[in-house]
Amino acid sequence: MNETIDRLLGHRSIRTYTDDPVSDEVIRTLVACGQAAATSSHVQATTVVQIKDADNRQRIAKIAGGQPWVVNAAAFLIWCADLRRASDACARVGGEFEAGMTEHFIIATVDVALAAQNAVVAAESLGLGICYIGGIRNDAAAVSELLHLPDQVYPVFGLCIGVPAQDPEVKPRLPIDAVLMQESYEDSAVAGHVANYDQTLTDYYARRSSNAKQSDWSHAMRSLVGKESRPHMHAFLNGQGFLTR
Amino acid sequence: MNETIDRLLGHRSIRTYTDDPVSDEVIRTLVACGQAAATSSHVQATTVVQIKDADNRQRIAKIAGGQPWVVNAAAFLIWCADLRRASDACARVGGEFEAGMTEHFIIATVDVALAAQNAVVAAESLGLGICYIGGIRNDAAAVSELLHLPDQVYPVFGLCIGVPAQDPEVKPRLPIDAVLMQESYEDSAVAGHVANYDQTLTDYYARRSSNAKQSDWSHAMRSLVGKESRPHMHAFLNGQGFLTR
Repeated sequence: MNETIDRLLGHRSIRTYTDDPVSDEVIRTLVACGQAAATSSHVQATTVVQIKDADNRQRIAKIAGGQPWVVNAAAFLIWCADLRRASDACARVGGEFEAGMTEHFIIATVDVALAAQNAVVAAESLGLGICYIGGIRNDAAAVSELLHLPDQVYPVFGLCIGVPAQDPEVKPRLPIDAVLMQESYEDSAVAGHVANYDQTLTDYYARRSSNAKQSDWSHAMRSLVGKESRPHMHAFLNGQGFLTR
Repeated sequence: MNETIDRLLGHRSIRTYTDDPVSDEVIRTLVACGQAAATSSHVQATTVVQIKDADNRQRIAKIAGGQPWVVNAAAFLIWCADLRRASDACARVGGEFEAGMTEHFIIATVDVALAAQNAVVAAESLGLGICYIGGIRNDAAAVSELLHLPDQVYPVFGLCIGVPAQDPEVKPRLPIDAVLMQESYEDSAVAGHVANYDQTLTDYYARRSSNAKQSDWSHAMRSLVGKESRPHMHAFLNGQGFLTR
């Protein structure tokens, strides 16, 4: 329909970058675009910590399970959900922060994701490539310690940014009719869509230009949700003052 | 820097719409843009339920605290975090879903927000206006019942979409130096930024063209985080199978 939409539909994660730098000015523009996203009750619960130090990059890449693009990307940002600023502001006018509420955790986490995605759209509009790094949550406590994150702040994900040195295919998504429903949840339709999609992904994985493999969506989901995933997260978040009630 | 970035930086929530419709084809395009966003381990935990029925819109507007734009917007979508599809897929190949993990809740919630923000960017690129509706969580259980949401699905937020019939100012954000930090969390800088920003927002609220008021960020934050907010959310999410560990 237009260039923006074509670009959104063409998104691929980029994990190989050229040596071209990304300037501080560009990073500030991307973060400003993030700030411009909608924010619940104007809380602006996003804090971005840029990591330039090579040793810190190495440490974080290791925490993320050995993802070399964390080290090699021109820029690497850690997006944090931050209620501390709001808490400080509240105290500034005599209020007392209500810590630990699940609702506040949702607000902060959603805020960060909306902001980061705006930054990603802006980056891709400049011809840059990105890769989200959820793997920083493999040891969220170590990342928090490295970044000296105070209470009421947690690291949600990392983001690699750089000039693409690869041109991977777009990975097929679920059929839209499995995702867009009318008026209420349409449970009965899902199984058929998933079966078809398994075949779509099997074909995609077998044929793609790099990292071809034999898999499908159902097996990938069994690996993701059929086992415990980062079981430390609940206690970690409690320790940072989140999700206690 | 370019048109996409200018548009991102110019975002305002739109709450008054013309009577112009938004076609099903456009909605499908917006949701497809949402699907194209990055998704953790390809889980694609986003389900969108479109609400056209006038009575359902009225019910949801009431739950959201009487927001008439929920009724009046050309289109209204409820964005749900959905691990049920992944759970079904896991079972399809003999796996057993690990319910209730905090990490999975984060993955699903972030997935939905990334997808929704892509849809928002696409909508705004077409000249449409949007407003996120976190107020559906005022009674998340009632919304879930209305939409027949099964276990492992929860409604994260609503989204109004329509042709703008208003042209509000862009609301000033926190200074970027309060948000973008280098290498580690810079606690000491925050207080000064917040004091300045309080003044910025006081001026903005006093002067803006509609709904002028006397307030600042610190008082707004006291209202948001200085009291309990949707205290039912933890039990509601547990009931839907989320966040039990």
